[in-house]
Order: sequence, then C-alpha cells, then structure tokens
Amino acid sequence: MKILIMNGPNLNMLGRRDPKHYGSQTLAEIYEKLKARFGGIDLEFFQSNHEGGLIDRLHQADGSFDGVVLNAGALTHYSIALRDAIDSVEVPVVEVHLSNIAARESFRNHSVIAPVCRGSISGFGMQSYMLGIQAIIDLTADGEA
Amino acid sequence: MKILIMNGPNLNMLGRRDPKHYGSQTLAEIYEKLKARFGGIDLEFFQSNHEGGLIDRLHQADGSFDGVVLNAGALTHYSIALRDAIDSVEVPVVEVHLSNIAARESFRNHSVIAPVCRGSISGFGMQSYMLGIQAIIDLTADGEA
Amino acid sequence: MKILIMNGPNLNMLGRRDPKHYGSQTLAEIYEKLKARFGGIDLEFFQSNHEGGLIDRLHQADGSFDGVVLNAGALTHYSIALRDAIDSVEVPVVEVHLSNIAARESFRNHSVIAPVCRGSISGFGMQSYMLGIQAIIDLTADGEA
Amino acid sequence: MKILIMNGPNLNMLGRRDPKHYGSQTLAEIYEKLKARFGGIDLEFFQSNHEGGLIDRLHQADGSFDGVVLNAGALTHYSIALRDAIDSVEVPVVEVHLSNIAARESFRNHSVIAPVCRGSISGFGMQSYMLGIQAIIDLTADGEA
Amino acid sequence: MKILIMNGPNLNMLGRRDPKHYGSQTLAEIYEKLKARFGGIDLEFFQSNHEGGLIDRLHQADGSFDGVVLNAGALTHYSIALRDAIDSVEVPVVEVHLSNIAARESFRNHSVIAPVCRGSISGFGMQSYMLGIQAIIDLTADGEA
Amino acid sequence: MKILIMNGPNLNMLGRRDPKHYGSQTLAEIYEKLKARFGGIDLEFFQSNHEGGLIDRLHQADGSFDGVVLNAGALTHYSIALRDAIDSVEVPVVEVHLSNIAARESFRNHSVIAPVCRGSISGFGMQSYMLGIQAIIDLTADGEA
Amino acid sequence: MKILIMNGPNLNMLGRRDPKHYGSQTLAEIYEKLKARFGGIDLEFFQSNHEGGLIDRLHQADGSFDGVVLNAGALTHYSIALRDAIDSVEVPVVEVHLSNIAARESFRNHSVIAPVCRGSISGFGMQSYMLGIQAIIDLTADGEA
Amino acid sequence: MKILIMNGPNLNMLGRRDPKHYGSQTLAEIYEKLKARFGGIDLEFFQSNHEGGLIDRLHQADGSFDGVVLNAGALTHYSIALRDAIDSVEVPVVEVHLSNIAARESFRNHSVIAPVCRGSISGFGMQSYMLGIQAIIDLTADGEA
Amino acid sequence: MKILIMNGPNLNMLGRRDPKHYGSQTLAEIYEKLKARFGGIDLEFFQSNHEGGLIDRLHQADGSFDGVVLNAGALTHYSIALRDAIDSVEVPVVEVHLSNIAARESFRNHSVIAPVCRGSISGFGMQSYMLGIQAIIDLTADGEA
Amino acid sequence: MKILIMNGPNLNMLGRRDPKHYGSQTLAEIYEKLKARFGGIDLEFFQSNHEGGLIDRLHQADGSFDGVVLNAGALTHYSIALRDAIDSVEVPVVEVHLSNIAARESFRNHSVIAPVCRGSISGFGMQSYMLGIQAIIDLTADGEA
Amino acid sequence: MKILIMNGPNLNMLGRRDPKHYGSQTLAEIYEKLKARFGGIDLEFFQSNHEGGLIDRLHQADGSFDGVVLNAGALTHYSIALRDAIDSVEVPVVEVHLSNIAARESFRNHSVIAPVCRGSISGFGMQSYMLGIQAIIDLTADGEA
Amino acid sequence: MKILIMNGPNLNMLGRRDPKHYGSQTLAEIYEKLKARFGGIDLEFFQSNHEGGLIDRLHQADGSFDGVVLNAGALTHYSIALRDAIDSVEVPVVEVHLSNIAARESFRNHSVIAPVCRGSISGFGMQSYMLGIQAIIDLTADGEA
Repeated sequence: MKILIMNGPNLNMLGRRDPKHYGSQTLAEIYEKLKARFGGIDLEFFQSNHEGGLIDRLHQADGSFDGVVLNAGALTHYSIALRDAIDSVEVPVVEVHLSNIAARESFRNHSVIAPVCRGSISGFGMQSYMLGIQAIIDLTADGEA
Repeated sequence: MKILIMNGPNLNMLGRRDPKHYGSQTLAEIYEKLKARFGGIDLEFFQSNHEGGLIDRLHQADGSFDGVVLNAGALTHYSIALRDAIDSVEVPVVEVHLSNIAARESFRNHSVIAPVCRGSISGFGMQSYMLGIQAIIDLTADGEA
Repeated sequence: MKILIMNGPNLNMLGRRDPKHYGSQTLAEIYEKLKARFGGIDLEFFQSNHEGGLIDRLHQADGSFDGVVLNAGALTHYSIALRDAIDSVEVPVVEVHLSNIAARESFRNHSVIAPVCRGSISGFGMQSYMLGIQAIIDLTADGEA
Repeated sequence: MKILIMNGPNLNMLGRRDPKHYGSQTLAEIYEKLKARFGGIDLEFFQSNHEGGLIDRLHQADGSFDGVVLNAGALTHYSIALRDAIDSVEVPVVEVHLSNIAARESFRNHSVIAPVCRGSISGFGMQSYMLGIQAIIDLTADGEA
Repeated sequence: MKILIMNGPNLNMLGRRDPKHYGSQTLAEIYEKLKARFGGIDLEFFQSNHEGGLIDRLHQADGSFDGVVLNAGALTHYSIALRDAIDSVEVPVVEVHLSNIAARESFRNHSVIAPVCRGSISGFGMQSYMLGIQAIIDLTADGEA
Repeated sequence: MKILIMNGPNLNMLGRRDPKHYGSQTLAEIYEKLKARFGGIDLEFFQSNHEGGLIDRLHQADGSFDGVVLNAGALTHYSIALRDAIDSVEVPVVEVHLSNIAARESFRNHSVIAPVCRGSISGFGMQSYMLGIQAIIDLTADGEA
Repeated sequence: MKILIMNGPNLNMLGRRDPKHYGSQTLAEIYEKLKARFGGIDLEFFQSNHEGGLIDRLHQADGSFDGVVLNAGALTHYSIALRDAIDSVEVPVVEVHLSNIAARESFRNHSVIAPVCRGSISGFGMQSYMLGIQAIIDLTADGEA
Repeated sequence: MKILIMNGPNLNMLGRRDPKHYGSQTLAEIYEKLKARFGGIDLEFFQSNHEGGLIDRLHQADGSFDGVVLNAGALTHYSIALRDAIDSVEVPVVEVHLSNIAARESFRNHSVIAPVCRGSISGFGMQSYMLGIQAIIDLTADGEA
Repeated sequence: MKILIMNGPNLNMLGRRDPKHYGSQTLAEIYEKLKARFGGIDLEFFQSNHEGGLIDRLHQADGSFDGVVLNAGALTHYSIALRDAIDSVEVPVVEVHLSNIAARESFRNHSVIAPVCRGSISGFGMQSYMLGIQAIIDLTADGEA
Repeated sequence: MKILIMNGPNLNMLGRRDPKHYGSQTLAEIYEKLKARFGGIDLEFFQSNHEGGLIDRLHQADGSFDGVVLNAGALTHYSIALRDAIDSVEVPVVEVHLSNIAARESFRNHSVIAPVCRGSISGFGMQSYMLGIQAIIDLTADGEA
Repeated sequence: MKILIMNGPNLNMLGRRDPKHYGSQTLAEIYEKLKARFGGIDLEFFQSNHEGGLIDRLHQADGSFDGVVLNAGALTHYSIALRDAIDSVEVPVVEVHLSNIAARESFRNHSVIAPVCRGSISGFGMQSYMLGIQAIIDLTADGEA
Repeated sequence: MKILIMNGPNLNMLGRRDPKHYGSQTLAEIYEKLKARFGGIDLEFFQSNHEGGLIDRLHQADGSFDGVVLNAGALTHYSIALRDAIDSVEVPVVEVHLSNIAARESFRNHSVIAPVCRGSISGFGMQSYMLGIQAIIDLTADGEA
C-alpha cells in the first residue's frame, strides 16, 4: 500500500509559525511520527509552495499511489486549478487541515477543493494526517477507494 | 473510556433514504459495526429528531463521557442553539457527516456547529463515525481531549 | 383513501391571531369544513409546535397514508430538518399556506421545504387545504401520487 | 361563469420541450381535458409569446371574466410590467405552474407576479390548471373572488 | 401583578459557561435576586431547550400574565416560529439579553423576534432582567402594556 | 417645437388603478391638460404595453422631434433594451414618473434607463409631465438639447 | 410666495470644480439667474458644509416658507439625519441635482432623502433648480403643497 | 450621582413629528418627567443636530459624569465617528431609542454604536430613558459602571 | 445548408449608434459581407425589437434551418423567455456579440441565454457573425450540430 | 503568420478527464488537427500548470507572434496576474474554452481575463481553437489585430 | 514650503484611547516631533470633530498650501462629502492612518476618500505622518504635486 | 542595514505597460534611483511572476534582512498563500503600490496581504518604494521593526 502525503504553501514553515493554529512541531517531525505509526504503509512526502508544482505532482501520482492525503494550505481557499487537478485523477484524495478552518477568518471557512475530495478532516492537529491515512486504508479495505 | 454517538434529525431513516448520499445501511447496522471495531470502548448511542432533545442529552453527557461523536444532520446548518450547547460543555465534540457536505446543495456547505467542535470529518460514509471515535481515542491518549 | 393534514407552529392559535393574514376561523372549524367537503376520504389531523414532533409524525405516516397536506407554518422558512424528513418518506407531501407568503415580509417569501414537496398551494385561505386534498386525490387517480 | 386561461412565452411548445419538467402533453390536449372536466364553465384560452400581448389581453379581460388562471412562463421571473397589469385589474388572477419552480434553477425560484395574484399553485403538472380553476370556482361561491 | 420570566436554550447552563459573556451566576441565583428585588410581584420562571416548549408555554401564558420577560438565547437569531408565537399572543413580551449581542459574532447581531416584542434590553448582565421587569411594571402603570 | 410624450405599460389604465400612487385622472385627461398648458408646442402622444413598440416608436422619433418625455412604467426597472434604444437616438429623452419611485417597493427604486436620459423627474403626479416638457423647452432655448 | 433654496457640502465650490459634472457657473451666478427668472417669488438662499447646519436651517424654515428646493450634495447618499429632518417638517421639500446622479459612480446612484421628498429632479444643470421652483409654484397653485 | 442625557439630530422636533413612532411629548416634557422620577440624581441635558457637537460634548463629559444615556437619533445607523467617540471615553454610555428600531425600515435595524455601548434599550417610548438611567444607577451600585 | 441570422433590439440602429462599441457599419452592410463570404450557404436574416417576435421566429425556424446565429442585443441580459425559447428548439443556436461584453458595464457581463446556446463568440465586431456561421458549418460537418 | 496556442492547468490531462465537458481527445490529438487544418500557419504550442510559467511565456511571445489563442483553464476564473500579463502585451490574445463555461458551476461563469482579451469563444469543443485561430487570421487580414 | 496637517474626529483623544491601535502619544506630542524632524517646512495643524469644519478648512487651504496630510479618522469610511471636498481642491491631499486599517474591523477596511487622494499611507503609527510629509516634499521636488 | 525589494507578476514589464497607471520608467531604472537615494543601505532586488517563487524568496529572506518592501502586483488581490508567507516570517514587510489601487477597478481595491503587512503605501509612483524603504529605516531606528 502506497500513500502520498502532499503539503501546500508555507507548510514548510511549520513550527516557525503561529503555534496557536498550527502547533509547534515541524513538518519533518510530523513525517517521522506518521512513519512510526503506519509502519506497514509506504508513505511518500511532498511539499511545495507552487500551485503548479502541486498539480504536476498530483498528475504524476495518478496510477502509482493508493491514495493521497492533501493539506493544500492557503490554496484550499482559491485554487480552482488544484481542484480541477484533483478532479482529473482517479486516485482518491483526502483533504486534511491541522487547524479547524471553520473557526478562523471567514475567508478560510470555504474550501474550493472539498467538493472533489473523497472526504475532509480538519481541526485535529497532526492527527488530521493520521486520520486521513486511516481513511484511505479503510476505504481500500472496503474496495471503495 | 466512554464515548457517546449522537445522531440528529432523520438519521433514524438511514437505509430508507437516498442511498446515493447516505448508503444503504441502517443506523442499527452502523452501531453494530462500530461496536465490533471498537470492542474495548464503551459506546453509547442516542438519536433524536428534536433539537431540544439533543441539547438536553449533550448537557447530561458533560462530565460522564470522554468524548462525543455528533452527526447533527440538518441541524448542522442552522441550529445556533445546538452550537451553543456544544460550546457550553467541556466534553470534546467531534463533528461527523456521512456524505461530503461540501459537494451537495449550497445550503449544506456551511456548518454552524463546526467552529465550536474539536474537529470535523465528512464524506467517508460509515467510516466517518469510525474516524471520529479514533480521533477521540488519540486526543485522549495525547492528553488533549 | 387516507390523508394526513399536518399543521406546524402557532396554527393552534388560528382565529386568535392576525385575521388579515389568516382569517377568523379556528383550526377546529377548518377541520370540520374539510371533513364535510371530503366525506369519502379518511382525514386525520395533527398539529404541533415542535419541529421534532412534526418530523416524528411524518416518519410514522410513511406507508399508512396516501398523501400529506402540510402547512409547516414558520418552519417553512428555515427547517432544513423538516425538509429532509419530507425527502426521506415516500408518501407525497403537498405544501399549503393560508396566506400568500409571496406578498408578506421578505423572510416569508422563501420556502426551504418547497423543493421536496410534490407541489405548493398558497394564498387561498382555508381553501388552500381543500385544493391540497383535491391535488392528492387527483394524483392518486392518475397513479402519480 | 367565465374563466380565462392565459399562457405565456413558449407554452405553445409544450410537448415538444423537456418532458422531465413539463410533461408530454401539448397545450391543445390540456385545453381539451380542462373543458372535459369543467363542463359547466365557460373557459376561454389565450397564449402569447409577447409580454405586451398578455398585458393587453388581461386589461381586456377585466370586467368580462370571473377569474383568470395565468401561467406566465418565464415572464414570471422578471416581468414587472405583467405584475402591474395584474395589479391594475379587478378580476382575480391565480398563478399556476406545471413544474415545481422551487425545485429548479435559482432564477426560477422567485416570482415577481405572485405578490399581486390571488394565490399560487405549482408543481402538479396539468392539474395545476385544474386546481386553479377550482380555486376560482370556490372563491366565487364564497363571494371572495 | 404577575410576570413570566422565560429562558431559552442553554440558559440552564449559566455559570458553567463562558463567564466573559454571561457572568458566573447560575440561573437559580438570578431568579433569587429577581424575587428579592421585586418582592411585590408574582414572578414565575420557565426554562426550556425546546423551541416548541417555549411556544407552548407562551401560548398558555396569554391571558394569565401581565407581561413576559424573554431571553430566547440562540433562538433569538433564527426562530421565526417563536417570533410568530410572540405575535400571536396579547401579553406584552420584553426581549432581554445578558450580553451585548451587537458586540459579538455577526450571526448574533440580528434578532428575528425583536420586531414583534414590546421592546428590547441587552448588555446589562443580570440587570437586563431587572430592567425588563421594571419596563413591564411601568407600561402597566401607564396602561400601555 | 415638437415634443413626443411616450407612456409605457399599464399607463392606459390610469384612473382605474391605485389612486394613492397614480391619482384619479385618466391618461386622456392628462393629455388634455398638457395641451392646454403648452398651447404653442406641438405635442404628440404614444402609449404602448409592448417594449418593442416603444423602441420602434423611439427610433422613428429620432430626427423629427425636439425632445421626448418618457414615462416607461414598469419597464423603467428592467428593460435594458429600452435603455439602449434611448442611447441609440440623438433626440433628448427626459424620464418622468407620476409617483415618487424612491418611496415605493425596493424593486422600483432603481431605473435602468436613467443613466442615458437627459434628466429625471419623479413624484409630482401629472406635473411631472409638465416639468418634463418645460425642461425640454428650456434646454432647447439654451441650445443644450 | 416664499421659497428657500438650500445647498449642501461643496456646492460653494461650484465653478471651481469638475465642469464636466457641474458646469462652470458659480453658485452666486446661479442665484442671480433664479432671481431673474422668478421675479415675483421671494427666494432665500442658504449653503452649508455642515450636516447639522442644514438640519437646523430646515427646522427653522418650517412654517415660514411655502417650499424648499434642496440640493443636498454628497449628504444625499448617506445622511439619514437629513432625511429625518425633511420628514419632521411640513414644508414640502423638492430634491434637485445638477448632474444626473444615476449616470455617475454607483455610490451616487442612491438617495437616502428621496423617499421623504415631495419629488426629485436631476440632471438638468442649473435648470434643475428652476424646475424645482416651478414644481413648488404649481403644487401651491393646486393646493397640494 | 451625575448623569448626562444626550439627544441627537431631530429629537428637538419631538412632539411635532410622527407620533406613531415617537409619541406626542416634547423633549422638554420628557426632561421634566425624568427629573420628577429621579429626584436624587443630578441630570444634565444636551441636544444637538451636529455629529461633531455630540462628539465634543461626549469628550467633555468624560470624567465628570457617572454615566451617559444617549439617543443618537439617525446617527445611530452610520456615525462611526460617534462610535469612536464612545469608545474613546471611560464613562459608560447606555444606548436608548424611543421606538423599536428593529420593527422599522431596514436601514434603522442596525446600530453602529451598539457594540461600544454598555448596553441598549429600545422600544419603550419615554420609558427607554428611565430604564437607561436606572441601568446606570444599578451598574454604579454594583461597582460595574 | 440554411442558416438564420437573428438580431435583437436596437441592432437596426447599427452605424447610427456608438461606433466605439459597435463599429460604423450598418446591419445591411454586414448582411452583404456575410453573403459575400459564405456564398454557398443559404443565409436568412431577421431583426426585431420585440422579444415576442424573436421567440415566434425562433419557434418557426426549428426544423427548417441547420443553425441559428443569434445576437440578442440587450435581451441577452434578462430575457429568460428567450432563453427558454432557445431551450425549446432543436436547431443549434450560436450566441454572438459585436462587442466584448465582458469589458463593458457590469450589467452586460452576464448572459442569461449563454447556458442554453451551443457556444458563444464575442468581441470580434462583424467577424463574430462570420465565426458563428463557421461554427455551425463545422459542427454540421462533424455531425454534432 | 505565427500563432501561439497556450493551454493552462490540467489541459495536459485532456482525454483522461471528464469527457462530458471536455471530449475524449488528448491535447496532442487536438494539436495535430489544428496543424492539419491550418497548414499555412506557423502554429506553436505551450502548456503549463504554472500561472507564472504562462505569464513568462506570454511576455516572451510579445513581438514574435501575430496572435495568441489562450485556453487558461481554471486560471480563467481567478488569475488577475494572468489578466495583467495579457494587458501588458501588444499581441492580440483570443480566449477559448472547450466547454460552455456559462452552463457549468457558477464559479466557472465568470472570466477575469475576458475583459482584456480581443474576444472570447467558448463551447465548441476542439473547434473553439479553430475559430480562435480563424479570428486572428481575419483580424490580421483586416489590419485590426 | 507649507504643509497642512489635518486630523478628523476623536484624534484629539489620542493617548487617552486604545493604545494597541493608536499608541500612547498625544496629538500635541506628535506635532512636536513632526516640527522637530521637518525643521525647514512650515507646518500648520488643524483638528476637528466636525465633518463640516474639515471641509471648510480644506476649501480655505486650497491655494495657500503645497500639500495636505489628512488623517480623516472615522470619516474615512463614510464621508462622501469630505471626499468631494478633496476632489474640489487642487492642493494634493495625502491620506494617512496611524493604524493598519486593513487589519481591523471590516467597516474600517474601506476608505471612501482614498480614490481622490494623491496616495495613501497606513499602519506606521506616528511615522505615517512623517512619510506623508515626505511624500509631499518629494512630489513637489518632482514637480508632480 | 539590509532591505529586500520584492516585485510580483508583470512588474518586469514596467515601462512597456499602461503609463497612465504605472509611469514610463522600467524596473531597472527604478532600482537605480533607489540605490542612488539610499546609498548607505544594502538593497537587494527580486522579481518573479511565480507566486511560489515569491513565497520561497520571502521564506529565505527571514533572518537575513531588516525589512522587505513588497509590490505584490496582481497577487495582492487574491494570493492568500502569499499572505500566509508574510505572516510566517518575522522580518517586517511593507506593502507598496505604484498606482492608487483604491482609484482603479473594484477588484483592485482590496488587498488580501495588507492585514499582515507592517503598513501600506500606495499611489506615489516610484516614490512609493522610497517611502517604503524610509519606513523600514525609521521603524528600525525606533526599535519597532
């Protein structure tokens, strides 16, 4: 089983940025914890601050992964191009967010990618990623992914 | 560990209603699967079509449960009273939805309860409940719940 | 043939309330006139000020009535839960209103239940109920109900 | 008793157009059925694709009919001129629609003529006309028309 | 003189909930203070988390009370059914709020019941109730209630 | 000097319709008074309930009149075609209204033709026409028309 | 006969400001022309850049003038206080504008004072004042002012 | 104890203006009644039609009064400058209105000053002032003012 | 091959009207150029300032033309009746505009007929018609028309 | 003659993605057909999923091409940067879309680049590109490009 | 060189008011610092809580100053009269704000005066004034002021 | 002292593009003038048409510059990702614009990055950059940067 963990703009700054919303762990530390928890799963990681880079990577992932866990960062709220990229691939994409985006500024309440994702998980900090991976494992087990 | 699974209006009709959005399982069948998967957890179930009934139950749950998994059904979209009830208790509440509410009618895209929930999970069918329970278990393990 | 006449919040106050919009007849007087006019039809009546009570009753009605004539009162304008209840049953529901809701305050111009009702009738006073019953009779005769 | 049945733009195309919304009967076939059902009533029919033509006809109808059953077609949604025409005559006008306009595109949800009509009936297919005629008969019997 | 003090959803949680907005007194403590201050007035108290329960109680109050002081809680912002209930009774209803609802989240800035209340008082904490009672006393003295 | 007085939909019903907004004079009576007051001016009159008829007439008027006084009735609020017709001719068009359209329903507050008219006059009853004619006389005298 | 000509903020700058919208005449020159044209009328003039000053003057004018011609300048678009002042006096107030406010920036399209004025005239340059005075003369002659 | 009663634009016209909304008493009569009722309180009165005058007075009041009862009239709805003035002083300001502003035109439903006032009271006619004074007395007694 | 070129309101004024947006050619000159370019195609031309006239013509065209090139003029922006007429016929309709409607007033940016046209072409002046004809030729060649 | 065909995000996925909206041809197949049809024209092709890449390419194209046919994909709806890039070059840019964007989700109805393009063509599938090339050829022939 | 520093409502309260947004310096202290820094410039200062007072002063300033640095306070957000005053003078006006108005309440995000100012500077505390003066000096040096 | 001057999309086209809004200088010429004026400051320059490239550069700048002067071009209006990048770094960022963005198209009036910048300067042409650099120098001198 092979899952791609994709992170969008500014998530490389995790741990340097507002801990109230994002916690104090770095992205590398989160990656380590995910690998520790999901030992039997082949996890691959990708982060980019470029909308186009994320789209390119998602296109390439199609056919070679069982699922994608995507934290699109701020692109969540306006990147219709990323939305169309998710819509153009067959691999199931699960949307995750560290913070509870419904509890923040109004411009963060709306996700333009949610309607084309398999499902959405937000507000559990690092555990949002874990739940996202779990979701893909379960969906695959059910033959629904 | 004790978790309350709350379901709002019309979820008693599951299995009788639009399978495209909600699947063909009844609520009782879902309850059985949850109990089977989380054998070591004390799960309690509650369903009501009454906003006031859900609020009463949530008030009572405070102090006697480690977490609440709440599918508020249509109340999700307008019940500020339910929102305030969630806000008035200390037990962490996780919002779940069977369907991907972002992909449906525009009046279902907005959740008035999301900002006061611990986190939100939607779109994974019955697995949304499983992920919600898992989230509470993990939060408790981390001492964050 | 069996038809359920359901009335929502405050319709128990008919005759005590603003006669300009609702006329001076009580609900009991209207019930009598409906029974007089539709002698051969088995009419049952239900009124509640509780959204949840109306939903419960509608769920129970499914399978045992040929149609429901529903005046949802103020719930017409915001109860998505009632909307979903109508959507969850197979019995055809006809929306009726005593007053012409399009001619009143702007918040009364929109019905959230109309899209899932079989049809809507408003503005004819007590005759709105008569036309609603007639509609169900005709639909049944046509095998469309 | 004399009732005018008025039909607005494109209703001459009934039976040629989207049967999902409008059924497969032609306007002529509907007229025949109405005459069959309401044998004792003098029914007159008028259809025009011209807003001005409908207004002219409505002005002329004032004083010579007991009621008007009006399906204004798409003019329902923007013709303030037709609204004012209805408001300028004393003959009661009943608004009817074949389809449930609340269940269609958002621009069809709003009727600019409804506030000045005696009442509105929508969603019952051809029976919307029958109910409209019945409404006028009853109103006249009650001396309310 | 007889006045009914009605409280809506979640006000039974007073003292347990956000003290910044609602203070640290329980509803029972507030009731005691009101009775102490208005010794000569027959005060009755009612709290419910059910919209329908509040409507039922208000209907019953009509004719047997000189006034109602109503803190409708979150229902203030969306319960058109409660608004119609207030409109359907003759007893004057005074709207009160503990917090200054204009200074909170935008969805709390609007009251759907205010237009049919005799007047509104908000932002004075427990004293909002006292001022509400005083208002009814004064209106009655003036023969305006 | 030659001025065309144009009237749109339903103005042929003047005197039969709501006297609160439009007064009790018929259009013919108004025409007589205008001719009496402006003896030396060649006044021509045109009324139509057809948007297209008004546009055709306006096109023809170009080059043969010194000015047009236009009461577009309800078309004022939505007929972009009429707006473009005014914009397509060189003859100056003065917009007039019997009633004060700013004091009526919100959908009557906006005029889509006003931006392309020479000026606007509303709220003076029949005198709006007189002022409109006066405006054209003065503009012509100043060589501004 | 006595008429007050009131001018609001920045109209003292006429002739110094954008001639495209306001012409090149000064306010003093306009006053002279008005006096020349309406020789038999007692015209008084008032200009202020202060909202409060205009309100004070209007209050004083009540009872001592037959009419007021008011160009409220930018206050037209937001001064509800000026609106209430007009509403609080019995002397008829006619709204005038030099430019066609419907043809300018969108924030100038709406007049908050129009609904309480006797009528409105805009777009005729200096002649808007002349038509406003004429309107008051005619209204007085008709006993309508 | 010293309380300042401030009144904004057009309140000097009370008794001359629409009695349906504002009653038939003059401001002077109201002042007399307030003095009669609150004999032991040093009441001072100020009315101005000038936004700037009200702001100046409020600045001066800071430090020399125990509270301010403010009826800002129409400025309630748009004067952010007055709002900032209230925010810039330490003396508690209580907002009052004679009429129920929620029951009037939509532009009167919103108060821009409410969020920075200590509390708001509206709809009780002259008694709104009495309740406002009582509120300040009580707050002071509680040491909360 | 037979194609109908339909033009809506005011297009008969081409060449007399704003050359910045519409060029200086008359409609007749454009017709000549189209005939010259598409020698082998049977082109028919129709222009009307009447919404109803355009609808009538479109109904008649169904079945006797291979395609329609429609410049609906101002009706583009509000004629839902014309939209429904296009929707009611089988002949493919191509929407064309001389000017770039996206670059003009905001009320011209939206086309209510576009969703039911086969495709849209705007901004190329007279060549918009040529491209529209070409589109129909190509679609027919592909068997897609 | 030299024309650049530019394609934005996800158009490299053509043929793999929703055939209902985009057809089943790949971008390479479309390129072949364009070259076949326009043998005498020097066509160059560019596709990128990067907004910045498209802007860079467009800047470079200025001065070396006679025209650009641009399908901006999802960037059409929000990339003001791309809009400004089009505005910053002299080469004429023609906007094309495979699908009829007016007939899809509301967020696809608006094009932020349309106002600065030479013209727009949408809804003709692959032929939209052909018509776009034709438009540039014709404009160049007319000396208008 | 002569520059006028104008301050609007409530800026006389600086140092007494919310230091988080406005700092703890008084207006007098700021004036001293500005004089110290720009020794060679003739600086004049004006503060008023009256919209009309600011307009009067600005009119007088025209012709006698090289530039105006204006902090309009709350009037920034609604005073179209002040906007027109700026537009009516030739002296360049630079808008300054102590706080970052984009980071505060939404009603402070929009400036109605910005479009007619020479430029805007906000968020630098007292230094916003310094930068405003510097801007005028530089513009004058360039002959652009 | 070290300051980074960042420029977003299309600013490399300066001097080639609309001189009315942006002047006729190239970016290189502006850089030369900035270096000439601020001789003692270490200025570094960066321009990119890629949102991701700007974010990457800003992340790198953190810790090695005393301030950033950012002209984000069109990204100003929609790039929440750039906003978050600014929020994620400690180096103070000053927003600058050549043109007065409040005076242009409505979609340019709003800046999504302004709320997280240290301050904003717009409308002074090339001098906006100079004032931005000056702001950082002053802030640093005050120990506020």
